[in-house]
This record gives sequence, C-alpha cells and structure tokens, in this order.
Amino acid sequence: VLIADLSISLDGFVAGPDQTLEQPLGRGGEKLHEWIFGLESWRRSHGLEGGERNEDSDIVAEHVEAMGAVIMGRRMFSGGDGPWESDPNAASWFGDDPPFRVPVFVLTHHAREPETFANGTSYTFVTEGIEHALEQARAAGGDKNVSIHGGASVVQQYLRAGLLDALQVHVVPILLGGGVHLFGALGEDTGLEIDRVVASPAVTHLRYRVTRPPAA
Amino acid sequence: VLIADLSISLDGFVAGPDQTLEQPLGRGGEKLHEWIFGLESWRRSHGLEGGERNEDSDIVAEHVEAMGAVIMGRRMFSGGDGPWESDPNAASWFGDDPPFRVPVFVLTHHAREPETFANGTSYTFVTEGIEHALEQARAAGGDKNVSIHGGASVVQQYLRAGLLDALQVHVVPILLGGGVHLFGALGEDTGLEIDRVVASPAVTHLRYRVTRPPAA
Repeated sequence: VLIADLSISLDGFVAGPDQTLEQPLGRGGEKLHEWIFGLESWRRSHGLEGGERNEDSDIVAEHVEAMGAVIMGRRMFSGGDGPWESDPNAASWFGDDPPFRVPVFVLTHHAREPETFANGTSYTFVTEGIEHALEQARAAGGDKNVSIHGGASVVQQYLRAGLLDALQVHVVPILLGGGVHLFGALGEDTGLEIDRVVASPAVTHLRYRVTRPPAA
Repeated sequence: VLIADLSISLDGFVAGPDQTLEQPLGRGGEKLHEWIFGLESWRRSHGLEGGERNEDSDIVAEHVEAMGAVIMGRRMFSGGDGPWESDPNAASWFGDDPPFRVPVFVLTHHAREPETFANGTSYTFVTEGIEHALEQARAAGGDKNVSIHGGASVVQQYLRAGLLDALQVHVVPILLGGGVHLFGALGEDTGLEIDRVVASPAVTHLRYRVTRPPAA
C-alpha cells in the first residue's frame, strides 16, 4: 500500500505563508506538528523516552509499525520537518540516529551517493522520477507500506499518476490562511472514500482510500 | 450560540470553480450536498416523507431542532443552495413552504419588504450590517441557536468580528480544486478547539468552538 501521511491545517495547508530557509514550515506552520512531539510512540521512534499514550499515539504507532519504506521530496529532506541531512555542513537534528529506521527514497534532480545508518535508516537519492522511486521503495519495504512523507507536490504527483492507494491527514484545529496547500488545484474527479476517522481532543485523523486519480 | 454550519470539500471549498447563475455551486459543487438529500431528518424539514435514519440524519436533526433563527448572505438566498426566493419571477424550489420554519435574516445592501409564511419561515432583509442582523436573529430565536448558512464571506465576517461561537463543517470526501474557499485568507491567529467529531461512511462532521478571532 502506498500511503501519504501528513498533518494539515483545517484550511488544508501543510506549511504556512512566507516560507524561508530559516522557517521552512512558514509562518505558524510549526503548529501543525505540536500534537505529535509529546506522544510516547513518536518519542520512541525518535530514540526518546517517556511521553503520553492515547489515541494519537496509537495512530502514530500503527503508522510506524506498518511502514517499510519512505518516499519524500528533496526540499522536505533538507528543510521541512527535518532537516534529516547528515551532511556535517548542514544542521542535522538527528546525527547518526535518523528517526526512520527504514530505507528512505529522496526524489531529487541531483544524483548523490546513498547513505546508510546502523539503525536501519538509509537515504537513496532517486533522479529517475516517481515511478522508479516507488519501485525501489516497494522492493525495500517488502510486505509493508510505502509512506510518502511529503511535501505536498510529491503527494500530488503520486495522486495524479494514479499510484496513491491511501491518504491519511491529521487535521489540526488551526487556520494558516496561505502557504503550501496539500491538494493545490487537484480537481473534482479525484475519487476518495472515507476509510477511517479517529478523533482526539488535539487532532482529527482522517484516512481515505483513493479510488480514482484526478483527471489529467 | 452563533454557529456556522456548512458542507465543505476535503480541500475546504463551499462551491466549485466557474460559478454561474445557472450553476451557483460551481463545477462539481453540487456533490457537496448529495449526502443530505436522502436523510429522513432533512426530508422531514423539507416537507418530504421517507428517507434514511443514520448518524448523518441525527446530526441534521440535532441542528434543525437547535436552530431558532438563520442568517445568510444575499447571494446564498438568491442562488447557492436555494434559491429560496418566493418572487414569482424567480425560480423557487419551495414556493409557500420554505424549509426553514424559523425567521431568516438576509444580509443585503438593498432594502426590501419582509415576507412571512404560514409555516413559521420569515425573510427579513437587513441592510445595517452583520451585528444588527445578529441582534435581530438572537431576539427572534429566543434560547435557541442562530445558524449561519453561508456563504463563506458571511462566515468570515462573523469570525473576524469575534462573534462566531461555533463552527460545524461537514467534510465531504471530494476535492474541488478551486472555487469559494470557506476560510479564504483567515490566518493562524484564529483560535479553534475540537468540540465533537461524528463519522459516517459518507461525510465527517467536525464541530469546533471558536475561542479567538483572527487578527485584524
């Protein structure tokens, strides 16, 4: 199963307005991710102890356990939630212990040597396009899911290509009013079916099956 | 309680692209409302028999029973879901039996004589602005809710003015890709708290408390 999993504002943005290198999530965009940092399952997957166990942490644990490989865009890799770069010249949050623990395929226009970490994370840079990245991710992930972590344009490319099977959005009760919209101009022909809804006081987890890609 | 209650697409639109007089909901926008027409509670409030009883019809019944008065914009009144016009020169869907059965206050720039119907519906045209409309609606609605039926710009005006207490969106699993966005450019300062989530196979009902208006 190819699933995209992203936090969005109630108005549909994955990043706020006025993105900069220093503020890759745009103005207010960091609020999209506050719900996750205190959760036991998220902390465990990031090598941290403690944290809360609740319906939100169950959702995160489920996703982590089902995930066999990750696909993400180049900007997301270098900025976004990360940076997950291990380049010593780049600011890295995680050093030798990146939080994925599975193979990660980064879509990029610039070829680059792969990197491998002792904890199971690897970074492979794919220049041959989204289908090639998906083939590699499927082979690496075995029976488990391939998870698209973003950004929005990567999700949109897989949706348009008819390759996305499922979409899980974590709807955070904030408005961003601008920035990067998850769906952009994807239109009304997209077939979506509600698969599951999990509610908590902090965030609403909506999972959809994708039954039909948007018209070209 | 002043509550706005609207159906939106997953990407946040209350109407699709290319709105015209003939197609006031824009391209694909009619799909926003398909979930409601077969429900027993909706049919009953529109003078029709039969229909399905399920979690969606309970949500609609709850809203109808709690509603003491309605506020809507002029375009919504004349086009939108309606037209609810009883002008014999306008196409009217409901004739002498409009579906509200409570006083309706229509925001407009053009003064016009009020209309009253035997079933409890009345149309009062308010030219003095949103606060005046709210005062009248509150007086008319007694202890019950005042419900804003739209359009988006009316909801945004009440939100900006700090007058909106609650927001219920019925998130339909479609993408419209353009059109009229419920939140427009309302920004990240808006305070929202998740109040209740009700899920069904057809639509997800998200209710929020509004705790802080967007910055001016």
